[in-house]
Amino acid sequence: MPLDQTFPFDDRGLAYGDGLFETVLVRDGKAQLWDEHLARLKRGSKTLGLAMPSADVLADLPKRCGSGLKVLKLIVTRGSGGQGYRLPAVASSRLRWQVQPFTPRADRWLGVRVRHCELRLGVQPRLAGIKHLNRLENVLARSEWQDAEIAEGLLCDSEGRLTEATAMNLVWRRRGRWETPALQHCGVAGTLRQALFTSLPLIEVETGARVLGEVDALCLINSVQGVWPVLQLDTAWGAMQHHWEPNAHHLALQRLAHSLLGYPQPDASGFPANGG
Amino acid sequence: MPLDQTFPFDDRGLAYGDGLFETVLVRDGKAQLWDEHLARLKRGSKTLGLAMPSADVLADLPKRCGSGLKVLKLIVTRGSGGQGYRLPAVASSRLRWQVQPFTPRADRWLGVRVRHCELRLGVQPRLAGIKHLNRLENVLARSEWQDAEIAEGLLCDSEGRLTEATAMNLVWRRRGRWETPALQHCGVAGTLRQALFTSLPLIEVETGARVLGEVDALCLINSVQGVWPVLQLDTAWGAMQHHWEPNAHHLALQRLAHSLLGYPQPDASGFPANGG
Repeated sequence: MPLDQTFPFDDRGLAYGDGLFETVLVRDGKAQLWDEHLARLKRGSKTLGLAMPSADVLADLPKRCGSGLKVLKLIVTRGSGGQGYRLPAVASSRLRWQVQPFTPRADRWLGVRVRHCELRLGVQPRLAGIKHLNRLENVLARSEWQDAEIAEGLLCDSEGRLTEATAMNLVWRRRGRWETPALQHCGVAGTLRQALFTSLPLIEVETGARVLGEVDALCLINSVQGVWPVLQLDTAWGAMQHHWEPNAHHLALQRLAHSLLGYPQPDASGFPANGG
Repeated sequence: MPLDQTFPFDDRGLAYGDGLFETVLVRDGKAQLWDEHLARLKRGSKTLGLAMPSADVLADLPKRCGSGLKVLKLIVTRGSGGQGYRLPAVASSRLRWQVQPFTPRADRWLGVRVRHCELRLGVQPRLAGIKHLNRLENVLARSEWQDAEIAEGLLCDSEGRLTEATAMNLVWRRRGRWETPALQHCGVAGTLRQALFTSLPLIEVETGARVLGEVDALCLINSVQGVWPVLQLDTAWGAMQHHWEPNAHHLALQRLAHSLLGYPQPDASGFPANGG
C-alpha cells in the first residue's frame, strides 16, 4: 500500500503551523535518543492540546527505516477541522513521516566558524522548548548569510538573552562548569541537550551574548549532527569577535555526546577525522 | 482536470510555516478589497523572499468562485527544497486555493462581548503586519475560551502594547479621533484596516490596553466579517471591565466599512438587522 505522505489543504499544520515535528537519527533501524524525542513530542502535544499518536505506531517507525544511517522526520499536525483558529471540538492529529539517508558533517566535528544573527527571537513562554511548526524566525535567521564557511548563526531573544543557534543548541564551559541557555522564553530544547542533563552537571543560565567573552569552550550540539566545537565567532557584520583553540573541553563534550549518538570518539590526540 | 489541493510532505509551508495566506470575501465572482489583499501578499512575498504567484493566475481566482457570497482562501508557500531552514537557491512558491460558501455573522453587527487574552504576542518586527503561516499564537489565544457568548479575544504583545484580536483588527474612537494599534512589532495588518486608512483620518497609536478606559467606541473589524461594535469587554478571568452603549461612532464606522465590503448599511435608527 503506498504511503500517504501528503497533507490536505485544510490541514491545520499547514494553515497555522499547528503541529510538531521531530528529526530523529536512526542507525540500522534503531532510533538514537528515542526516549528524548518521544518525551518532547509528548510535551508538545500537551502544550498544544493535540492528540499524541499511538505509542505502537511511533515505536514501529524506526524499524521501518532499513539499515544504515538515516534521518527519520515525523510531522504531527492537529489534522483538519475547527473553525478558523478555533480548535476542533475533539482533539485530533495527523501523522506523516519520511526517511532519508544521512551523513553527518564530520568535517565540522573538527571545529566551525559561526556568527551572530541580527534577528531577535520573539519571546513566547507558551511555546518555548517544544518543536512546533512555527519556524519562520529560524528560516529568516538562516537566510542572513550565504557564506558556506559560516556553519551556524547564534540567536538572542528580543530581550537580549542568548538562546540557541538556528538549528542547534549551545553548551559552553565557563568557570569550571558546563552551562546552556535556559529556554523558558523561546527556543527549542534539543534532545541531545536534554540527554546531556543526565550525563553531565549541566546548568541552565539566563545571560546575554556578552557571556561568550568569558567561556573556555563553546559547542553547538544537536541530535543528528553531534557536537561542533566553535573556533571562531563573528559579528553579524562579519568581523571576528572571538577565537578559541580546540581544547580538552571540546573533546570531553564531544566524547560524551558522540557516545550517546553512536558517532566516533575523538582520540587523545584530537578530534575524530571522519564520519564513521 | 481535478484541482490539486494537497501539499507534499516536504513543502516548506508545512515544515516551517514558510508561506503566506489570504482569506478573501468574493461576491458573485468579484473579490472585495482585492487590491489590498494583493498588496499584502506582495509585501509578505518580499518580506519572506519568496516568489509571488503570477498576476494572471491570481486575477483569475475570484472569477472561478461562482455566484453568491464566498470566501476564497489562498495559501502561497515557499514550495519544496532548500536544506533544513536554509532557503532554496532559487526563489520558488506553491499556490493552492479553496472556495467555500460564506455567511457573515450578521448578529454580531449589532454588538459583541469580548475578553482579554492571557497570552502575550511575541515581538517580531521582521514578521509584523504580514499574513504568514506561523499562527500558533492565534490558535492558543483562541483556545482560551469556549463560551459562545464571547466573540473575540484582545491581544497585547510581550511588552504590553494592545495589538489586535485573535482574527480581527481593532479600531476605536477617542478624543474625537479614530485610532488603531500600530503593527510594527507584531500582529496582522488586515485589509479592511488598510482600506480604512484611505477613507478615514485613522491614526496608528502605540498604547497599552488601559487606553480602552478612554474610548467612546471600540470596534473589531476584518474583511470577511465587517465591523463588530464592542459592547462589553471582560477581563481574562471573566469579570466585566468595560461597557459601551451602541452609539453613532459604531454606526459611522460600520456604514463606511460595510460600503467597502458590499454589506448592508445601518440605518439612522440603528444597526442592520440581517446579513442581506
